[in-house]
Amino acid sequence: MWEDLGMNLQTHDMLCEVLPQAFGDVYLSQDNRPDGMDYFNMVVADIHGIRPAELVEFQKKGGKVVGSFCIHVPDEVVVAGGAIATGLCSGSQFWVPGGEKVLPTATCPLIKASLGARFDKTCPFFRLCDLFTGETACDGKKKAWEILAEDAPMYIMDIPQMKRPEDYTKWSNEIKNYIKRIEELTGNKITESSLKSAIVLLNNKRKALQRLNNFRKLEHIPISGKDVLLIHQIAFYDDPARFTSMVNKLCDELDKRKTEDVSVFKKGTKRILLTGTPLSIPNWKVHHIIETSGGAVICEEMCTGIRYCEALVKETGNTMDELIDNLTERYLGHINCACFTPNKSRIEDIIRLAKEYKADGVIDLNLKFCSIYDSEGYFVERELQKAGIPCLGIETDYTDEDAEQLKTRIGAFIEMLA
Amino acid sequence: MWEDLGMNLQTHDMLCEVLPQAFGDVYLSQDNRPDGMDYFNMVVADIHGIRPAELVEFQKKGGKVVGSFCIHVPDEVVVAGGAIATGLCSGSQFWVPGGEKVLPTATCPLIKASLGARFDKTCPFFRLCDLFTGETACDGKKKAWEILAEDAPMYIMDIPQMKRPEDYTKWSNEIKNYIKRIEELTGNKITESSLKSAIVLLNNKRKALQRLNNFRKLEHIPISGKDVLLIHQIAFYDDPARFTSMVNKLCDELDKRKTEDVSVFKKGTKRILLTGTPLSIPNWKVHHIIETSGGAVICEEMCTGIRYCEALVKETGNTMDELIDNLTERYLGHINCACFTPNKSRIEDIIRLAKEYKADGVIDLNLKFCSIYDSEGYFVERELQKAGIPCLGIETDYTDEDAEQLKTRIGAFIEMLA
Repeated sequence: MWEDLGMNLQTHDMLCEVLPQAFGDVYLSQDNRPDGMDYFNMVVADIHGIRPAELVEFQKKGGKVVGSFCIHVPDEVVVAGGAIATGLCSGSQFWVPGGEKVLPTATCPLIKASLGARFDKTCPFFRLCDLFTGETACDGKKKAWEILAEDAPMYIMDIPQMKRPEDYTKWSNEIKNYIKRIEELTGNKITESSLKSAIVLLNNKRKALQRLNNFRKLEHIPISGKDVLLIHQIAFYDDPARFTSMVNKLCDELDKRKTEDVSVFKKGTKRILLTGTPLSIPNWKVHHIIETSGGAVICEEMCTGIRYCEALVKETGNTMDELIDNLTERYLGHINCACFTPNKSRIEDIIRLAKEYKADGVIDLNLKFCSIYDSEGYFVERELQKAGIPCLGIETDYTDEDAEQLKTRIGAFIEMLA
Repeated sequence: MWEDLGMNLQTHDMLCEVLPQAFGDVYLSQDNRPDGMDYFNMVVADIHGIRPAELVEFQKKGGKVVGSFCIHVPDEVVVAGGAIATGLCSGSQFWVPGGEKVLPTATCPLIKASLGARFDKTCPFFRLCDLFTGETACDGKKKAWEILAEDAPMYIMDIPQMKRPEDYTKWSNEIKNYIKRIEELTGNKITESSLKSAIVLLNNKRKALQRLNNFRKLEHIPISGKDVLLIHQIAFYDDPARFTSMVNKLCDELDKRKTEDVSVFKKGTKRILLTGTPLSIPNWKVHHIIETSGGAVICEEMCTGIRYCEALVKETGNTMDELIDNLTERYLGHINCACFTPNKSRIEDIIRLAKEYKADGVIDLNLKFCSIYDSEGYFVERELQKAGIPCLGIETDYTDEDAEQLKTRIGAFIEMLA
């Protein structure tokens, strides 16, 4: 299969050798993990096997696969068109040098890794997509997609930079254009009924994730932050119905743990809310450092976290216009990415979430060279200070070079928390 | 006057001490400068004196002054409202540390200096404006204006990121909103007649600058690149009618030089086209290095160059809608900034200009951490190579730390040109 996808098998083998070791060290070493994690362990263990094979099988029967890089891109449209949506953001240093061949060094590792994954031919998801849906969320991505477009079939959605009434109209028109593009790709007409079903399907995924996140509000937290992060990362790739049922199954187990006051953390573990840039699979570095330094990650105000699952698409309305309005409202109004100006709602989100999840402290995590989150950190750290919530700002990338320094800084921060 | 503007006089004195020395070294040291440069020398010599005093005088009579940072913002609207438009981009390292107090280090020096100029209270232009018109040209600026807005009255124009038909409509609406905002500020109604007059006034400025640039197409170039750069920089600040007449007066002198085949450069000097990020006053570093290393800068494909003056606003049409369409067409359609995706027209511009100005080579100049131009450099350098035009990519900032390295690299590049 990998040969058919035009993969570089030799380099890919190198990647496949590294991942199990890393996963073992970070994940399998944890004590008292819920049994329901077995499914997610399996997905990661065979991340370049099982799911890509399903997608290729689907394509053989005439199905189309659409990849995307940003939680503003509405998967509902893809699903309603009878296609499969898959996330493409890359979280491994393995792909960064490949991206640096075509992009400035001063580009965030997520973007560099995404281009490297394609150009180095070592990620099956980046080989098999029939369409790559990029967007204009930040300067780095906007310009990177121009380079990717020379090698892959790209479609660009233009995300508004503000949230005025006219920007909602603009985003609604972008969604309408996207519907046309997906109809063209699949040959299927997107109908009120197929769009509504897709909304329900993906809302169910969000509800399951939110159910999972709610366990992290408990005093006795029955699941680690690392495990919840992994599940959010897998949410971007997995079949949504199967994923939802596996998350709910895990939550049933956590319900039991809840009645028994089971916690995976020792008493006195400090509760850390993470905010900032996305953590794509297999980027587990900061979670691992926090959770081996006396902390528990109890919420991610991130694209790979609350921003992905907290807000639902309204399920009311029956006409296409009403359904598109619902998507517009959710995908523009309820995602408070630093790409917007101004973006005060994100600060409100962080403070609200810190209270809901009873955070002892916040870590504002920035991927190196992410200019929008780095700049917004000025407000985040100032407003948290005003609100009396301890906050530590850190900047990192996909390498392990700063791991020791981060351990020292994060360890000192956690120790200092009351 | 400076005290009234809330300036920090002590720090400002330090700045005023440095500039004459730098100007003397870079400018007054040149041989055989046209007499018409005397006016522009005077403007620079008293850059924080004469013009700010004029603006303050205008304000005392009830006039309003509007500052802006980007050549996408249509000065015609400000002028038609009876206000004065002034450029605000900052080109001195003096202001960078002040900007770094509130912005990430990995922000381009132009943005850092602009915020530093305001917060350090050492630039009268940044103190006296009644309105600061920011825009969303890049992530760095977009987020920086949020910080500036806490201290200064800001208005934001949202520049489209693409150039599809709907983006022209969007930009036209942004211009309409800007008209309303300027009317609100000045209390003056902007009419067909006042807008048309403003279009003519600013077109005349552009025509004078283009007349000046045309002398650089000659084999015997009668004016240095440094001097032309300075004039473009002053174009952003000076009274447009006076400026136009002084540029035309200089051009009359250059006409005489033309008939006499006078050149300010030695035979064999290599003709360099510069492309890339803007060079705000007093950023003369790269021009100075090129023109003291055997090269002549013969064109700037930059905001402080051809992008500012080459395209005119159409003067046909009499209704507001027609005039706004003319502005939209010029300010969106004819500025090929790297903020757009895709932006192939810029590559066409560079290749066309290299031919028109008979460039021996192109230097692609990027201000550090300008992600959009840095990324687009991938295409610029590749396509110039394909076109057989030698190209050197350099990255620099406002410090002098890299001057020796740049001299070596630029010197070697010029020597290598056939």
